[in-house]
Amino acid sequence: MYNPLFLPEIREMLAENSVAELRECCTALHPARTAEFMEGLTAEETWRVLQHADEATRVEIFHYFELPKQIEIVETQPQEEVAGLITKLASDDRVDLLNEVDHEIVERLLPLLPSEERRDILHLRSYPEGTAGAVMTTAFAKLAETLTIRQAFDELQHQAEGLETIYYVYIVDDQDTLRGLVSARQLVSHMGRPETKLKDVMETGLVTAEVDDDQEEVAQKVARYDLLAIPVVDMQRRMLGIITYDDVIDVVREEATEDAHRSAAVAPLEESYLTTSLITLWWKRGMWLSILFLAALMTAFSLSVYQKNLEQWAWLTIFIPMVISSGGNMGNQSATLVITGMTSGDIRVTDWLRVVRRECVMGMMLGSVLGLMGLIAGCVMSEEARQPSAMLVIPLTVMSVIVCGSLTGAMLPLLFKRMGLDPALMSNPFVAGVMDILGIFIYMNVAYLFLAGY
Amino acid sequence: MYNPLFLPEIREMLAENSVAELRECCTALHPARTAEFMEGLTAEETWRVLQHADEATRVEIFHYFELPKQIEIVETQPQEEVAGLITKLASDDRVDLLNEVDHEIVERLLPLLPSEERRDILHLRSYPEGTAGAVMTTAFAKLAETLTIRQAFDELQHQAEGLETIYYVYIVDDQDTLRGLVSARQLVSHMGRPETKLKDVMETGLVTAEVDDDQEEVAQKVARYDLLAIPVVDMQRRMLGIITYDDVIDVVREEATEDAHRSAAVAPLEESYLTTSLITLWWKRGMWLSILFLAALMTAFSLSVYQKNLEQWAWLTIFIPMVISSGGNMGNQSATLVITGMTSGDIRVTDWLRVVRRECVMGMMLGSVLGLMGLIAGCVMSEEARQPSAMLVIPLTVMSVIVCGSLTGAMLPLLFKRMGLDPALMSNPFVAGVMDILGIFIYMNVAYLFLAGY
Repeated sequence: MYNPLFLPEIREMLAENSVAELRECCTALHPARTAEFMEGLTAEETWRVLQHADEATRVEIFHYFELPKQIEIVETQPQEEVAGLITKLASDDRVDLLNEVDHEIVERLLPLLPSEERRDILHLRSYPEGTAGAVMTTAFAKLAETLTIRQAFDELQHQAEGLETIYYVYIVDDQDTLRGLVSARQLVSHMGRPETKLKDVMETGLVTAEVDDDQEEVAQKVARYDLLAIPVVDMQRRMLGIITYDDVIDVVREEATEDAHRSAAVAPLEESYLTTSLITLWWKRGMWLSILFLAALMTAFSLSVYQKNLEQWAWLTIFIPMVISSGGNMGNQSATLVITGMTSGDIRVTDWLRVVRRECVMGMMLGSVLGLMGLIAGCVMSEEARQPSAMLVIPLTVMSVIVCGSLTGAMLPLLFKRMGLDPALMSNPFVAGVMDILGIFIYMNVAYLFLAGY
Repeated sequence: MYNPLFLPEIREMLAENSVAELRECCTALHPARTAEFMEGLTAEETWRVLQHADEATRVEIFHYFELPKQIEIVETQPQEEVAGLITKLASDDRVDLLNEVDHEIVERLLPLLPSEERRDILHLRSYPEGTAGAVMTTAFAKLAETLTIRQAFDELQHQAEGLETIYYVYIVDDQDTLRGLVSARQLVSHMGRPETKLKDVMETGLVTAEVDDDQEEVAQKVARYDLLAIPVVDMQRRMLGIITYDDVIDVVREEATEDAHRSAAVAPLEESYLTTSLITLWWKRGMWLSILFLAALMTAFSLSVYQKNLEQWAWLTIFIPMVISSGGNMGNQSATLVITGMTSGDIRVTDWLRVVRRECVMGMMLGSVLGLMGLIAGCVMSEEARQPSAMLVIPLTVMSVIVCGSLTGAMLPLLFKRMGLDPALMSNPFVAGVMDILGIFIYMNVAYLFLAGY
């Protein structure tokens, strides 16, 4: 898979217009690798190189470009040529792309497309982002249930070219209602009996997705049932499209990244970190940082309420960050375990009592260990904490904060889910912020309880 | 897809031994759903129900059980029958299962398996977990390059039954070296020319995985190139197995969950949250909580160093949690953006300078906003912070802490990656812990700078 081509050489070929070499450069490698090698070219250079590939290869290479590059090409290159390319793109990718392209350019491109493709685009664009409808492709293999195996093979040879997959062939009646599925594998193993009717070999009772299902749920279904593709149907079970395994892999990766960003209080990015503009990043991070800062103001407020106590027992101060961070850490662990459990379908909202019980026990088990560590730490670090009257302040605070952290961390995402919100909004910094405030409250009250009498 | 069967009814059928009903109950639904409905049965009841399914369905239903249930069945049910089932499982699933089953039972089961399956298991078990070798299946469609299209169809009809996918057919020479690939789709579209040789239609220059590649990298490749399956080869490019899209979806989900757990400082769990034993959870959470607690002790230590200052300017105390949490929040954002960027391949270690530059600018942009908020907060909350001499302490501290947080959060994962460690080990609580200590240091020094003169 070694490739001797570099950007300057491609540029030289363009300058010299060496057709044979440019053609070689488009076809020598897997289209995905070719796309990588062309990363550094401008939109115009890229487009000129692509003219030397046959149409199918051009479409394939284009498919592997990063979205910003695709957008730039569509927005700047000759519109008749671009329209030809767009016609050949997979129907789901085409819509994702056009959704990002400048609105006016799309308006000028659409009339240049064949009417069937234009209708398809307008139709798919009407589904909201994040739903099955927006991810599906409308190019799938579809046969009537009355055909025989032999007829099916003939038909597939004609259909094969424009389709994303022919490995699942969907069987429909004359109203386009989904009746069943015949896999290419079944077709092959029935080749010996070419007169068998499809309806006699098809699988029924298929797993389907509805067109407005959430893409994350659809991805879960495909993963659960190990499907190559899932049919997307409307309320009348009419076939609208399919979602294939490669789109599911993308959805799973996309959602995982989004969840990770949310868990660190960053509003999900649409592009990669390095290509997102600084202003967008500033807004997506700053919004949450500011909210968290305002929440953190509450800690200053609570501490100012207890300022008298802190002046009287100054040694309490040095343990504040330690005590409140234990609560935050415990809360993060619980929240993350519950959120990932819900994402993978292991924990349902109805399991809340089991979760609470487990977290209670876990809080006490871990609280005892950390409480003991707190006891030792307190005695070592501060003379005052060593007094019999004060000795229990740190360990009891740590224990209570840990138990409280485990319950808060576990309950907040369940509560969010129950209220119909995304539990992943319960970001780690948010849980930590709540625990900071609760921690100060617990700390000051435990301290007052033990120390006020003396 | 409505199912009228419930556990008590299944139990009644078992008690009455109603063969027809039990058979119906095994075959009426998709095997994955049947497996869900049998969730509540004991291992013995499950096994008795499964006896009423034909062999292929039994294997399919079993495949969809959760791992703990599979293990229980294998460990408790009659070994001859279990051995029959294991023979029919997909070769990768089989190994995953046997790796979890009690060692002695595996030793007794292995001799009961046909020698080919036994060798296959021993062979696959020799690959370390997390590598391509451990995820691959050895059952793939393989044809000699000298065959014609017609011969290929004949051959595939025989091979089809035991294989996980026939949609990619791998073409090998007589040393088993991988030469190319013919997709089922290409076979179908060449049906009209049955005498064409496979070597004349096969694709070459395939994307492959080596047997000891990391499973995460392999998953990235499959996603990048939109593959249905990726061939796994040894150093001599001999075909050892394939990894199919459904295993890739599982790997992506598994790794995302592991990363989420790590980011909240929980050692990755092997099972789901609800089925993991409390002792295991206690250990996997406690270990990290204790490490973080010890790190947090450092904050107590630093504060005790500055205790004199804090007694002199007591008003500084109430802003401690707010100031240090801003640094932690910013650090978490940066660390998560860099880690997810590296996971998805958008950020490489060589991009470190670009990342640092971006984070510097971002730190200053966000630092100014939060510094301003800090200025207002300080003036509102505390009379002392309103004095001209002290007014800049909070805003300048917040700004420095934010800039410092963005750099620390971005550099730590890059550094870990550079040292060959998993950047996801750079958990959010760990970054927050580091920022707590740094935050206190910055706060106390900025304060001293402004206040000591008066």
